[in-house]
Amino acid sequence: MHPFRSHTCADLTKADVGETVRLSGWVHRVRDHGGVLFIDLRDHYGITQVLADPDSPVFAEVEKVRSEWCIRIDGEVKARAESLINPKLPTGEIEVYIRDIEVLGSAEELPLMVFGDQEYPEETRLRYRYLDLRREAMQDNMKLRSDVVASIRRRMWDKGFREYQTPIITASSPEGARDFLVPSRLHPGRFYALPQAPQIFKQLIMVSGFDRYFQIAPCFRDEDPRADRSPTDFYQLDMEMSFATQQDVFDTIQPVIEGVFEEFGGGHKVDKHWPQISYADAARWYGTDKPDLRNPIKMQDVSDHFRGSGFAIFAKLLEQDGTEIRAIPAPTGGSRKFCDRMNSFAQKEGLPGMGYIFWRDGENGMEAAGPLAKNIGPERTEAIRQQLGLGKGDAAFFLGGKPAAFESVAGRARNVIGEELGLTEKDRFAFCWIVDFPMYEKDDETGAIDFSHNPFSMPQGGMEALEGDPLQVLGYQYDLACNGYELISGAIRNHRLDTMFKAFSLAGYTEDEVRARFPSLVNAFRFGAPPHGGCAAGIDRIVMLLADQQNIREVIMFPMNQRAEDLMMGAPTLPTNEQLRELRLRVLPPEE
Amino acid sequence: MHPFRSHTCADLTKADVGETVRLSGWVHRVRDHGGVLFIDLRDHYGITQVLADPDSPVFAEVEKVRSEWCIRIDGEVKARAESLINPKLPTGEIEVYIRDIEVLGSAEELPLMVFGDQEYPEETRLRYRYLDLRREAMQDNMKLRSDVVASIRRRMWDKGFREYQTPIITASSPEGARDFLVPSRLHPGRFYALPQAPQIFKQLIMVSGFDRYFQIAPCFRDEDPRADRSPTDFYQLDMEMSFATQQDVFDTIQPVIEGVFEEFGGGHKVDKHWPQISYADAARWYGTDKPDLRNPIKMQDVSDHFRGSGFAIFAKLLEQDGTEIRAIPAPTGGSRKFCDRMNSFAQKEGLPGMGYIFWRDGENGMEAAGPLAKNIGPERTEAIRQQLGLGKGDAAFFLGGKPAAFESVAGRARNVIGEELGLTEKDRFAFCWIVDFPMYEKDDETGAIDFSHNPFSMPQGGMEALEGDPLQVLGYQYDLACNGYELISGAIRNHRLDTMFKAFSLAGYTEDEVRARFPSLVNAFRFGAPPHGGCAAGIDRIVMLLADQQNIREVIMFPMNQRAEDLMMGAPTLPTNEQLRELRLRVLPPEE
Repeated sequence: MHPFRSHTCADLTKADVGETVRLSGWVHRVRDHGGVLFIDLRDHYGITQVLADPDSPVFAEVEKVRSEWCIRIDGEVKARAESLINPKLPTGEIEVYIRDIEVLGSAEELPLMVFGDQEYPEETRLRYRYLDLRREAMQDNMKLRSDVVASIRRRMWDKGFREYQTPIITASSPEGARDFLVPSRLHPGRFYALPQAPQIFKQLIMVSGFDRYFQIAPCFRDEDPRADRSPTDFYQLDMEMSFATQQDVFDTIQPVIEGVFEEFGGGHKVDKHWPQISYADAARWYGTDKPDLRNPIKMQDVSDHFRGSGFAIFAKLLEQDGTEIRAIPAPTGGSRKFCDRMNSFAQKEGLPGMGYIFWRDGENGMEAAGPLAKNIGPERTEAIRQQLGLGKGDAAFFLGGKPAAFESVAGRARNVIGEELGLTEKDRFAFCWIVDFPMYEKDDETGAIDFSHNPFSMPQGGMEALEGDPLQVLGYQYDLACNGYELISGAIRNHRLDTMFKAFSLAGYTEDEVRARFPSLVNAFRFGAPPHGGCAAGIDRIVMLLADQQNIREVIMFPMNQRAEDLMMGAPTLPTNEQLRELRLRVLPPEE
Repeated sequence: MHPFRSHTCADLTKADVGETVRLSGWVHRVRDHGGVLFIDLRDHYGITQVLADPDSPVFAEVEKVRSEWCIRIDGEVKARAESLINPKLPTGEIEVYIRDIEVLGSAEELPLMVFGDQEYPEETRLRYRYLDLRREAMQDNMKLRSDVVASIRRRMWDKGFREYQTPIITASSPEGARDFLVPSRLHPGRFYALPQAPQIFKQLIMVSGFDRYFQIAPCFRDEDPRADRSPTDFYQLDMEMSFATQQDVFDTIQPVIEGVFEEFGGGHKVDKHWPQISYADAARWYGTDKPDLRNPIKMQDVSDHFRGSGFAIFAKLLEQDGTEIRAIPAPTGGSRKFCDRMNSFAQKEGLPGMGYIFWRDGENGMEAAGPLAKNIGPERTEAIRQQLGLGKGDAAFFLGGKPAAFESVAGRARNVIGEELGLTEKDRFAFCWIVDFPMYEKDDETGAIDFSHNPFSMPQGGMEALEGDPLQVLGYQYDLACNGYELISGAIRNHRLDTMFKAFSLAGYTEDEVRARFPSLVNAFRFGAPPHGGCAAGIDRIVMLLADQQNIREVIMFPMNQRAEDLMMGAPTLPTNEQLRELRLRVLPPEE
């Protein structure tokens, strides 16, 4: 017989009754029922009930075992009495009478219980991660992550993509975040950098004549930590295609993501139609470039109804250039209580408040209530109601000013309204492409023009578009939003050196500066660069959505804490003098 | 029509004759045949011949294009005349008459030609890697690498393994090589390290209750470069199993490796029987722990025939303790010319020479020739011949002394003999497991006992074995050799803290030192560690063998050169003062 097991702890059924079997696993819990010891024996696959009565030749040994000891037992499979069958357990029809036991690994007193639902501080969980990971929820999260990544790979292969590994010890990459540096021993004083993303490399792979690249790629950014971000490394599904348009990229990646969400989405509805919404419309309708389309609320411009109206604040506001009044319709939100709650929300967000109208049963049928309705009068109120398609029992909220100043609050208000009124569908994944990102933005204070997003994107209209007003130039750049999160970001790249130099010059970079900052790409584009584009999807984010987790550390095997420390491994550590000498580095004292 | 292509350059056949098509790709070469311009248009998938005669509306445009320009053409598919069909090309039945052309990316004068077989210095190839990679051989190598890795993943999934990603920015790992360090910005003066291998992590994954782990894992070692080693990072198929014996690991990984070699081995024979050879026998028979079993030669101990013989050098040698005479049989090597050549080989290797006997046609049938035969006389010579199973036309070579002193030269001589006599089969992959590695070795000078290989391996016989002579202790540790290369290394781990402390104490480490050096593992083993073991296979090495390449840079997309520089990206670079200030580091001047 195998020294450790004839079966896993998920294998045995009624068909095995009478067999002598060998199992190995962890003592999930021990119960003493009137002198009979019941052990839930757990391995990666499941749980089997094993037991020792005082007749067992090893009863005394079994009495010694405690939670989380790793043991091997031999025993006989017996059927449980009908009344004791546990239908929730695949092995619930049987139990194993222990005849022999071996302690494979005993355990000291546990800092964290595996059995049960007790919560522990994150410090404890990360320090004893190997115990935390034994808990069912963590086992499930890790299996899910692994299965999601495997499924993505299969789907990319099926679409004719090959995975190519790009360097991890390399040169600084221009992604805008801070690089992790790696001092070179062979070249003292010089440093490598870990890639913030393989973007330059994947573009070079296209210039090298590979048609379809992908990689589940580790990315490294030395960023200040947050709950939903790993402070060191994270993983992307990175992909790139040659001779491809924006629509080709969409058509390629949509079935991959859609398929993964259908496979692992726990039966939630997965939208098949992914609308393409311009960056400008997304701001207008949802107040964000990552809208949650499970929420049906769409904001509308209602400026005309307030122009010259009796509501002086808005009427005056509208006399200034570039201002606007935006309505957030709130179907079923038509109560003063709810409207006041939303008004407080706006105050908490730093606004003076949020005007509203709501429609209720009045003496003569439906009537509009709220301070705004009074100020602008019944005709304008009714026109607004009709524009917004609202009725009795509904409400609308209003924000005014320059859109840039109120849009993000409006977007958050839309989220809260959708949540509180139960309008946001919970069991659904809703996707949309955000397209037509502006290439440039103007610094309000300095008036300087800079890239708003990725400087490597192809401007729509190419060279010609760059001759006009930079602020009007849109890029072939896109994001995918799902349930309010950004899942994917990508672009058709600017593969033409002349257009690239022109695009950079608008943002104030000379040709020499571009050459100096991106030497490999500039050099490569001198030798027959193909049109190409692609995108990158956040793996951790996808798994978080599928696992319904808000904290990225729940879907990473051995994460850092928020201070970028690995409590289990004890990283980072002090270097030895020998190491510093080899690298020709000196650490400056803190006070200097 | 799609803006770039209706077909790839590998798609068109006779069935498409008459169609108007659009192709994009690179100008592989241009030929001018009497005023008609023929272009081999190349993309990732293949080559299509396109042409423009002076009737073409864009003849003047086509005349301008040069090698490696990236172009888009529209044209009509026509059948080639019977005599012009190229059966080697999938598109060889047709050609496309260009009606429209667009230059997608022009090219300057090329530092490296893609068409043809011209060789270039490695500096040039690495600096212009994106051109080098367009060459057919490099495209094939990269595709092979990607396909091998994909196949390995599929095979591991099919065996119930899940891939789990382990940290890349982490703590120093005790693999014996030099770590790459990463200075921490949030913890000035402290450093992370990049993992030399995920061994500690995969052991922790087993302690965490995951049963079967694998990962195509990047590994980082700051080693001095060699041709067959990447100076920075390389990839391993890393795997680990719980509740597994050495034989379980073999039974799991053999079908994976065997399958990959059958799938990608170009029809070479792939051995199904993988013998298990002890480390001691491997040294005795092959003079190495990575024998090439395609070579049938097996060395033998022939000491008895020389003890007290007329060959004084060997006879005297054998009077010392621990000495031995080893024969290398050389079937078909029975000529003085060959024997003299092997003797010179030995001299080049620093030995005084290598004694030999060979058997040839003499006046009275077969006779033994060579200086040794004369010295020891016909009876002993004949006994040797019989022991080695040799006959007319064969030879044998002899080395004597302490095995440790001559074994590696003997092993190299065996290789050369096998090669020169054509005994080593070329079209075959021959595998063997090397097992029973000694746990400890003694430093000849200091007499100190140290681990000979991996300190985390389980000693055969466990605690009891550690009570005896350390030099007699064997470990559950193993390598896989293929055609003379080490492909895999692995072990059953020592998961018991008491045995681990004892094993380290024999090598001179106190319990406190072990706790300080491997805190995570020592802590984890306190809480119910399961028996576990696994192995790691070198991905780069496997691809090198399958691609029949001797230089690791031929199977890596963007490799460093041998001075650990990335000539294309310009790494490593000088850091900015801002970066150094944030990390609180100062670079020491070279002279200090």
